Formats: sequence, structure tokens, C-alpha cells
Amino acid sequence: MAIHPVEAIFHPRSIAVVGASGNPSSWGYGFLAPLLEFGYQGKIYPVNLKHPEVLGIKAYPSLGEIPDPVDYVISCIPASEILKMLEDCSPRGVKTVHLFTARFSETGHQQAAELEQEILREAKKRGIRLIGPNCMGLYYPREGISFSDALSKQSGTVGFISQSGQAAEELVRLAAPRGVYFSKVISYGNALDLNECDFLDYFSQDEKTNMILMYVEGIRNGQRFIDSLGQAASAKPVIILKGGRGESGGRAVASHTASLAGSQMIWEALITQAGALSAENLDELVDVAAAFSFLPPINGRKVGITGGGGGASVLAADQCEEAGLDVIPLPMEIREELRIRGITIWDWIGNPADMSIREDPNFCPGDMLEVMAKNKNFDFLMAIMYEPHHKRQQGMSADAYLEQYKLAGGCPKPLLAVAAEKGLGIEDFDHWSWKIMCEVRTKLLAAHIPFYPTIKRAAKAAKKLIDYYQQESSKPLSPL
Amino acid sequence: MAIHPVEAIFHPRSIAVVGASGNPSSWGYGFLAPLLEFGYQGKIYPVNLKHPEVLGIKAYPSLGEIPDPVDYVISCIPASEILKMLEDCSPRGVKTVHLFTARFSETGHQQAAELEQEILREAKKRGIRLIGPNCMGLYYPREGISFSDALSKQSGTVGFISQSGQAAEELVRLAAPRGVYFSKVISYGNALDLNECDFLDYFSQDEKTNMILMYVEGIRNGQRFIDSLGQAASAKPVIILKGGRGESGGRAVASHTASLAGSQMIWEALITQAGALSAENLDELVDVAAAFSFLPPINGRKVGITGGGGGASVLAADQCEEAGLDVIPLPMEIREELRIRGITIWDWIGNPADMSIREDPNFCPGDMLEVMAKNKNFDFLMAIMYEPHHKRQQGMSADAYLEQYKLAGGCPKPLLAVAAEKGLGIEDFDHWSWKIMCEVRTKLLAAHIPFYPTIKRAAKAAKKLIDYYQQESSKPLSPL
Repeated sequence: MAIHPVEAIFHPRSIAVVGASGNPSSWGYGFLAPLLEFGYQGKIYPVNLKHPEVLGIKAYPSLGEIPDPVDYVISCIPASEILKMLEDCSPRGVKTVHLFTARFSETGHQQAAELEQEILREAKKRGIRLIGPNCMGLYYPREGISFSDALSKQSGTVGFISQSGQAAEELVRLAAPRGVYFSKVISYGNALDLNECDFLDYFSQDEKTNMILMYVEGIRNGQRFIDSLGQAASAKPVIILKGGRGESGGRAVASHTASLAGSQMIWEALITQAGALSAENLDELVDVAAAFSFLPPINGRKVGITGGGGGASVLAADQCEEAGLDVIPLPMEIREELRIRGITIWDWIGNPADMSIREDPNFCPGDMLEVMAKNKNFDFLMAIMYEPHHKRQQGMSADAYLEQYKLAGGCPKPLLAVAAEKGLGIEDFDHWSWKIMCEVRTKLLAAHIPFYPTIKRAAKAAKKLIDYYQQESSKPLSPL
Repeated sequence: MAIHPVEAIFHPRSIAVVGASGNPSSWGYGFLAPLLEFGYQGKIYPVNLKHPEVLGIKAYPSLGEIPDPVDYVISCIPASEILKMLEDCSPRGVKTVHLFTARFSETGHQQAAELEQEILREAKKRGIRLIGPNCMGLYYPREGISFSDALSKQSGTVGFISQSGQAAEELVRLAAPRGVYFSKVISYGNALDLNECDFLDYFSQDEKTNMILMYVEGIRNGQRFIDSLGQAASAKPVIILKGGRGESGGRAVASHTASLAGSQMIWEALITQAGALSAENLDELVDVAAAFSFLPPINGRKVGITGGGGGASVLAADQCEEAGLDVIPLPMEIREELRIRGITIWDWIGNPADMSIREDPNFCPGDMLEVMAKNKNFDFLMAIMYEPHHKRQQGMSADAYLEQYKLAGGCPKPLLAVAAEKGLGIEDFDHWSWKIMCEVRTKLLAAHIPFYPTIKRAAKAAKKLIDYYQQESSKPLSPL
């Protein structure tokens, strides 16, 4: 297969930051500092009119005065200076310009929209590809490229294509505590030149990317998008969050990335037909990514649930069923096994298993998980975990906590944990019960078990995963 | 108005804990210890066959040997011993027995169900009212009564009627960090004698209770429930979470509180016609309670939103609209005011206000909130808050953070804050950025501003509040 042109864009041998600055609250600092901090190995050229050095690196008053070739330019200068900058790019052999620079068509001003088009013509003439304008560009931790000092340095296998820079940053930060890390992220803004389809095509053939997340406000070319999406979704899971679904969101889209939001119904149909999945907000995008990152294929909707008390069991059943899962009655073989083991509640306990009714304190949620895990009727399992909160539990270790669930060695069936999070006040900031739960979360991820803040979110994420694999398995085999 | 009989049940002059124990992992300890810790002022009588003293208090081998009258009995002994205990109650003048004791009709065993009925007949004969069986009973912090040592000692104005004890405890613990505290909570389990209607009638006339939350799995008498609910909802907001909405939840309900779950459609119609509100899980119950606790009436659906970046603004618009709110375009008067003040983005910024496009760093979300607050087109406002995360923000104080939103003195229009929570791993347990957010949350509540973990949850809670007040205002005036 031919190497996709975007591959080179992600691997520049040198980067110039035009408008680089030593002022920490400036964007010129915001783009330069992470290159240093993330350890970008290529050459870095700050361009600053006034200072001969920025952040300890030799700076140049213009691109034209850099003595060496420059592959990639990050532009933080005003819109009015871009045409001049493109002129300076040619002698340096610049291949890609990332225009963080904004205030083009998204302002709704005709003049700004015209300047945007002029910049496109000028770049095309010079053989320069554009990312943006009005975007954050690349986050590629393996290569030491990042648009923010607040993102993880850890690499993963998830690709994210985001029309919004803010959404790109927020998603990466939401994902890290969930154990979800990224191969490459691109924020592409107004999509003047390179657009969602270019990146989708690239990510679908990128071997470092196992799953593609997208945040899209509008598309440039409907037919091409349908083709690219279908191709990508047949290669790996693609989960799309569409921004601008309603009237007010559509208005916000126009002033954000100058895109046409389009009809939500058409979008939904298009996503489904392509074999992609949709998400309704960033939280759900992370939830689904965590499911794909940590779980093997789940081939059916039948879930076994344990760990909650009475009300929680009832509400877990309701919410799983409402999400489209099948909360089957407890299989007879399990009752029989419990009876033989002398568990007094063998004919009373159900699925979800309300462990608060047990008489034998040694019969713990982990025992229930074990019998459910080896029963062929269940496609996957869910374990509800509450923070320890009674006085007598203080001093409990995270290991002792997890022993109740017998999860030290992971779980032989796909398992989603539900571990509540709470927006605490400063009084409870370092409370012991939440500290244990933080340790528990770290240990769950180490055992390859994703966690979710609520039953509802776990159920919805599981359902998306199942939808994906069921649709995969129903595809006709390709002819030999 | 006559004093409701449940009033006496909540104000016993003495409590006996039958089956009291000094073993911290026993239920007999679990019910006795909180009475001491919460400072219950009446007399406490532990009943324990073997020990003359429990937790430092003189204990009695049976109820019969207590020398004084006993108003209220908490029973932690096995089902088979209850009939004998009721006999011992009469000479002590016991008025109420709370049967934590379980394993009755909820087990599905005919014999257990028959025993339950025999207990009811025996109690009636003796003039004893029963709470339960199979429940946690009372949480009434003002009176020093609690069924758990993990609940807040702070009193509030919210009443909660919960068929599940686990849901009662979980809700009270979910509510405290949100600044929502309770007047009285009752967990009533199988509702053998006193049922949801008795408590609904009582809470609707209780002056200490401004709002009623309910978790119900099934009802005993449909017509009476409709009457009680209508009466209660005409007196104060009533928000109902129905457990057992689907097939599997209905099964779980039967084995939890031996109730018939009933059809979800009938439930929804019944709740709406009565003028009550419904919630789909405990999180939503807390979300709505926080809205009613902190916000004045909101009389329309028109919301002004600020604080998020580009993608967040688009997604906020979508999610608010999907929740039934009206995200109106930014009013012309506001544009004009911004123009006069020299804000360059006056003709570009919208609602939601994407503050990331501003050129003037002194124009902050708080300025936008101020102009929105004084504009009559908005019924209420929403402020999106992200944890500070850039290196340069480290050391920022919560006050400096909130200054950006100009909220030190509260907000003149109803305002909901959105402050994300994250399930952190142990690496991030005490990270500075989350510590600031904990301080911010505490300060928000002090300024009477409720916070929500997501835009979606804030939007849904606001919509319920609006529904309530709109329906209130459309009621015909009662004749003089």
C-alpha cells in the first residue's frame, strides 16, 4: 500500500513556531514549550521579530532567515500576516503549515472569508498543505509533538480526529484517567485544505491506530466522507461525535468552524450505514473508547451483574435493559451450584445479584462473579463497586477491597466495573474512602478492567461495543 | 390540621435495639452505634441475651425486662423470633416496631410470606405500627436518629421516602457533597403496615420538609397512592424514581421488596397527572434536588451559556436543546453593549458564548455572565467550568479562579455551574488542579450556586425545575 501523504505531516524533521514567545500566557509559548517538554527530536526554530532567543533556543526574525530547511510550520501570528508568511515558506521548502491563526470565515465577515480563500490558493500554488485554520494541530506523543503542556506523554493506540481544538484537549485529558491513550490526535478546525476525510483515510491505514474517534461539526464533501467512513469503519472501530445537532448547535458550529451542521437524521443514518458508531458527548466517546481498549469482543447482550445492594440491583436491571442489554434470569445451573455449596439464598438470589441478602459473609461478590464467569449463558459481566464508607472500613487496603471481587488476576469474561466518582468539596478532598477508590481504579486498569462512573454509562458503552461486533459478524464474507 | 400519626413515630422518647451487639460488623451494632454517635437524646435500651452491657450502655436480655416504657423498637433478630418479641412489646407500651429483620415474602417462600401476614395481624391486635420488614428505618439527623454511621449529621429540608434501604443510604451520601441535606428519611421495605402513602401524607404536611424525593418499587393501593401523590405534589415538589421499570427490574423488585412493579407507562402518566416529577436514577434525583435546593423558581426555558471553548459551546447547545431548553441567539442589546465597550468580537460571539475567541484577555466569562444576567431575554444561566490544567495555572487560588466568573457575590439570575468530576487513579489523587476544583465547589455552594458534573445533567435538572414551575403557574386558582 502506498504511504499516505499525511504520514509525512506527522513526521516533520523540523518545526518552526512562527510567533513563538517566552510569555507563558501567549499561544506562541503554548505551542513551543510542549515541543521542548515532550522531547521532540527534530530541529525547532522559534520565529520572533524581537528576541534572538526564545525559551533558550536561537530564534529568527522571520522564516526567511532560518538557514536550514523547515518541514512544518506552526503559525500563531495574525491572519493579516499569513500571505507574507507563505511567501517566506517556499525558500525553506516548507511542506505543511498548521494555522492556529484564526478569525477567518468563522467570524462571519466576508473579507475574512475571502482572505481564507486567498490563503488556500496561495498555499496550493506553493505546494504547501494546510492544517486549519483555527485549530490546535497535532498531538503525537510518540514523536514528542503536543499542542498543550496538560496532555499525557504516554502513547496509546487510539486516533482522534477533532474539528475542535478544545474538544481535542478535553478528550485527551478525560481519557487518561480511564487508561485510554492516543496514537495521534489531529485538530483541524475550518478544514480549508486537509479535511476530515484526509485524516480518516490516513488513520484507517495507520498501523499504530486501532480505533478512530471523531468530533465533527460539518463535512466538506458528503460523498467522499461516506466513502472514507465506510472504508475506515471496515478496518477498525470508528466512533463519531457530531457537534451541531440542533438549531442552536448549528448556529454555534457556524461561528466556531464555519461549517454547515447538516441534518441530524441524515447523520445518524450515514453513520450507521457506514458501520460506524455514534456518541452523544465527549464522556460517551471516552466510555466507548475505554470499552474497546480494555475488552475483548462481546458477542451478545446477556449481562450478569453483581455487587450492588437491593435498590442498586433493581436500578441496574432497569438501566441495562433501557440501554438494550439483556438482564437474563439467574441460570438454573448457577442456583444448583450455589445450593450444593450450601449458600442459603440459592433459590432467592437473582441477576442482578443483590449481595446484601446473603447470610454467609464469606460468600462475596467475587464468588458470584466466578460462577457467572464460567456460565455460558452470560456474554459479559458488570461489577458494581461502592466506596467503602463505614467507620469500620477505614484503613482497608485497595487489595483487600478488590479481594471481595476476586479480580486480582483479572476476569475470564469481559467485565465492566462501575466505580462512582463524586464532585467533592474541599472538606472531602483527601478523604480515605475516595483514596481507596483511586487505588482501586488504578488496579482495575492494571487488571485490564475498564471502569465507569455510573451503571447507565457502563451499560451504554457495552451496548455500543456489542453493536459493533454483532454488525461485524453479520457482514457477508468477502469472495476469495 | 390534626397531627399526623407518623409524627410520633419520628419522635420516640425511647428506643430499644433488639439484637444490639458490640461487634462492629453486625447489624445490631450498625443500628445502635449511630444513635450514640448522632447524639439521640431519648433513652436507649440495647437488648442482648448474653451481655449485660453493649457499647457501654446497660443491656437487657429481653424487651420484657426493661423497667421503663419503650416507644420504638428496632429489630435485628431473625424472622422466627418476631412473634415472641411482639408479645414482649405490649407490656412496655411499644408504639412502633421497625423490622430491619428480613427474609419474609421477598424470599418467594410461601411459609415466610405467611409468617409476615401473621406478624401483621399480631401487631394490629396489639396496636403496634410496623415499619418494614426488610428495611433500614429512620434517618432523622435533627433528632439524632440514623441507620448508618456514614451519613451526614447535618440537617436539611429534603424528605426522602425510599422503599430500599440501600438506595436511602446511597442517596444521602450522594447528596451531601452537592449541598443537599435531609429533614427526614424513611426506608420502608416491604410496606407490610405503614406504606409509601402514609409517609407521603406525613411529609406533605411536615413543615420541616420543603421537597419530597421518593424511590418506589411497587405500591400497595393504587387509588390511595394517586390521591396522596396529588395532595403532596400540590403542596411541594415531589420527585419520584421508580425502580423495576422493565422486565428484569420487575423480577428484581419481587425478590427485593416483594412488590409488583407495574407498567412503566401507567407510572409515567400517573406521576405527570399528579403534578410530580420523575427521575431515572439516583444521580438524577440528586441533580433535581440540588436545583430545587439552591435555585429560585425559573419561569422559562431560555438559557444563556458561557465558559466553554469552541467544541464545548457547540455540544452545550446540542445537549441543552435535547433536554428541552431553548438556547436563544445572543440578544442584539448584548451585542450593542459589547460593541460600545469595545469588545472586538461583539458581532461574532454567540450563545453559548465561546470565550476562547476573545482578543481582550480582560473580557472574561464573568463579564458575559453579567451582561446575560441583566438581559430580560434569559430565564436562567449556565457556566461551564474546567479544572485549571496548564502548568502556568499551578498555584492559582480558588478565589482567583472564581473571579473569572465574577461569582463572589452569587449571581442575580438563576445559575447552574458545570464542574466536571473525574474518576482518578491514585497517581492523580491529590493533584493540585482537582484540589482547586474541590475548593471551587465548596465556594459555589456557599454562593448558593448548584454544580453538576456534566452539561447534560445540568440541562436535564434545570428542565425538571422549569416543568414544575410552569405547571404550577398554569394551575387554575382555587376558589375563595
